[in-house]
Amino acid sequence: MTTEGAATIRALCERARAASRALSAVGRADKDRALRHLAEKLREQASLGSRSTVLAANAEDLENAKQAGLPSAMLDRLTLNESRLRAIADAVLEVAAQDDPVGEVVSMQRRPNGLSVGQIRIPLGVIAMIYEARPNVTVDAAVLCVKSGNAALLRGGKEAARSNEALSDLVRDSIRAVGLPTDAVQMVPPGDRDAMKVLIGMSGLVDLVIPRGGEGLIRFVAEHARVPVIQHYKGVCHLYVDEGADLEMAVKLVENGKLQRPGVCNALECLLVHRDVASALLPKVDALSQRGLEIRGDAETLRFAKSARAATAEDYGCEFLATILAVRVVDSFEQALDHIAQYGSNHTEVICTNSYERAERFLRVVDASCVLVNASTRFNDGGELGLGAEIGISTSKLHAYGPMGLTHLTTLKWIARGNGQTR
Amino acid sequence: MTTEGAATIRALCERARAASRALSAVGRADKDRALRHLAEKLREQASLGSRSTVLAANAEDLENAKQAGLPSAMLDRLTLNESRLRAIADAVLEVAAQDDPVGEVVSMQRRPNGLSVGQIRIPLGVIAMIYEARPNVTVDAAVLCVKSGNAALLRGGKEAARSNEALSDLVRDSIRAVGLPTDAVQMVPPGDRDAMKVLIGMSGLVDLVIPRGGEGLIRFVAEHARVPVIQHYKGVCHLYVDEGADLEMAVKLVENGKLQRPGVCNALECLLVHRDVASALLPKVDALSQRGLEIRGDAETLRFAKSARAATAEDYGCEFLATILAVRVVDSFEQALDHIAQYGSNHTEVICTNSYERAERFLRVVDASCVLVNASTRFNDGGELGLGAEIGISTSKLHAYGPMGLTHLTTLKWIARGNGQTR
Repeated sequence: MTTEGAATIRALCERARAASRALSAVGRADKDRALRHLAEKLREQASLGSRSTVLAANAEDLENAKQAGLPSAMLDRLTLNESRLRAIADAVLEVAAQDDPVGEVVSMQRRPNGLSVGQIRIPLGVIAMIYEARPNVTVDAAVLCVKSGNAALLRGGKEAARSNEALSDLVRDSIRAVGLPTDAVQMVPPGDRDAMKVLIGMSGLVDLVIPRGGEGLIRFVAEHARVPVIQHYKGVCHLYVDEGADLEMAVKLVENGKLQRPGVCNALECLLVHRDVASALLPKVDALSQRGLEIRGDAETLRFAKSARAATAEDYGCEFLATILAVRVVDSFEQALDHIAQYGSNHTEVICTNSYERAERFLRVVDASCVLVNASTRFNDGGELGLGAEIGISTSKLHAYGPMGLTHLTTLKWIARGNGQTR
Repeated sequence: MTTEGAATIRALCERARAASRALSAVGRADKDRALRHLAEKLREQASLGSRSTVLAANAEDLENAKQAGLPSAMLDRLTLNESRLRAIADAVLEVAAQDDPVGEVVSMQRRPNGLSVGQIRIPLGVIAMIYEARPNVTVDAAVLCVKSGNAALLRGGKEAARSNEALSDLVRDSIRAVGLPTDAVQMVPPGDRDAMKVLIGMSGLVDLVIPRGGEGLIRFVAEHARVPVIQHYKGVCHLYVDEGADLEMAVKLVENGKLQRPGVCNALECLLVHRDVASALLPKVDALSQRGLEIRGDAETLRFAKSARAATAEDYGCEFLATILAVRVVDSFEQALDHIAQYGSNHTEVICTNSYERAERFLRVVDASCVLVNASTRFNDGGELGLGAEIGISTSKLHAYGPMGLTHLTTLKWIARGNGQTR
């Protein structure tokens, strides 16, 4: 990293800090106006078709990415089209419709000395988002930050650089159009990892870093950051089917968890089956192989799931992100708890049971950001849990554990109204 | 750091992790029994006088510290005696009397699909406290961690090593006496900074590091930690006296903020005076020089405060921790806000005013963990704000901003009760 490059990044951060101070005092009406303006511009782009500056920029990114030989899953994430632009616009309007968390007085009490003390919700300040080549994240993150009164520094994958520039121009135009500080949203040039180190080292200027992407990226950020980081490591989600459980329900939970959208972090990765229901349940799970399910099981599983092949040690604790399911037959509820404690990733854990006692115990003792009884792992999601749009799912416990919505981009400060109180 | 030394620290952390898993499921009654047992043991030690193992250990620490030439303020902090032991016992009983935050269901709602979703309070897990030679912190931190269901790793200053060992033995005996896992509280040998690096690098085993002490210690921890850190930097607290303010009240706030206990972080460090009240207020503040106040002021201040000497650039933004007060006369409310934004440390800020508009604006826009109107800076304190005992005052915004009580040693996990819901 050149001194000049580092100075450029510092200047971006200083502008963000100044903008955040102004933005923190802006009321909901102005922020929502900027968001609605942006949604309109995005729809306009969608209706322009090939004349859209955003879609033209995206076409260039895609062309380069194809020549560079990017895998098809990444090309798909990079792709924008008319319907995706409209979906992004809809998401912006959904955020505009959400309550503004800033200014909420969450407590206020009178102390014995007459001092009224309480806590009020305020923005965090400057939030740096580091993500891969997914242009929709540029808009999602910008909009969540602005609505919660935070300045956003966006550092997306270099493969999406043109798309991100075009989209962030729309965002900045919309912010400017309603008189808010434009530097509330800034793109950080992709650069290399040294440049990223400078950004995540800006203690005093950046309040929070949220990395979204592969485990390597997140570990790099956690290792080198000098400002707080919200980490979202992989989702190794388990479903434990208890003795006496409703097995039809169990099969539906496997099907929904594993096959509906296997590439996401709240997809199911490992099925734990109580010994007493293995012979009845596993043939039904095995039948899902006709729909593409690949089972990797222990010796007991292989007895009842004919399509299964033997699991290796690496299959337990693995985030497949594919239609592969690790399966293990356990002797008891306790053994299932131990397996989850050993292999789980603190993301999402489910029990399928009819036992009141074990349902409640599972909810209490399992350490994960979301623990469910008789429901799909796929419900660990901001929208499904009633939070609204999310900026990520935290698997670390500080500040936020689980999906992070607008509220989690704020903090509480104490305020006190007195009439001369002293100690 | 030798490989062996690092392995010892890792083993401590692994034992803490195992103990934290057991402790997280323990109910309030058992935790409170351990705390009451400890309070009894501390009182017993107090009544034993010179035959007390704790006081004997402390006498050794003090003897060594005197020979090493420790300054008197540090010797005072290191000293234990009968009345201090009783005060520590009282503090333990106060924590026992507080509600247990663990298990609180803070929200629960029914989603349109019938899924009941909500959030429940859980312990953070393993908390490492790093502090200087203050033996009372050993008990305070252990008790707050145990009550909130967390395992504690305590790393105190080496000058207090014998006192800390004796106190932590009492804590561990009390935990053992009621059948809780003894390794819920462990002392980490003081060692050098390389040893500290190992401790604060234990990602996956330690959930939170709380450094308490001088700025150098905190910066070292923030720089080298690989686990989340709650930082408490210095308190550079301001009082702004507005035009039209009650000047008798203003003098009382200066007196209480600066002279009652000048060595603490919520003491007043800088007085900002509106030009229109400078001639009336400053002679009254100047009169406090008879009680030891030393004023360092700008040119305008020197006109009205006869005992004052000229402030240097370093006096603004300085945490004196002594009966020294920086004073500046400002032209306007806006200039006071700018001064605070430039020199404040996000700790505690006060306005003394009779203007409704400026009081509300100050509360809203000043960025500090506690912002007060017409009350002393000294109220930024867990007990005074109704939180109960505190483990520190955070000046960073993530997770907690301001005094940290039992609640801030917990996090929220999502739980969901369903009957077969899928997406």
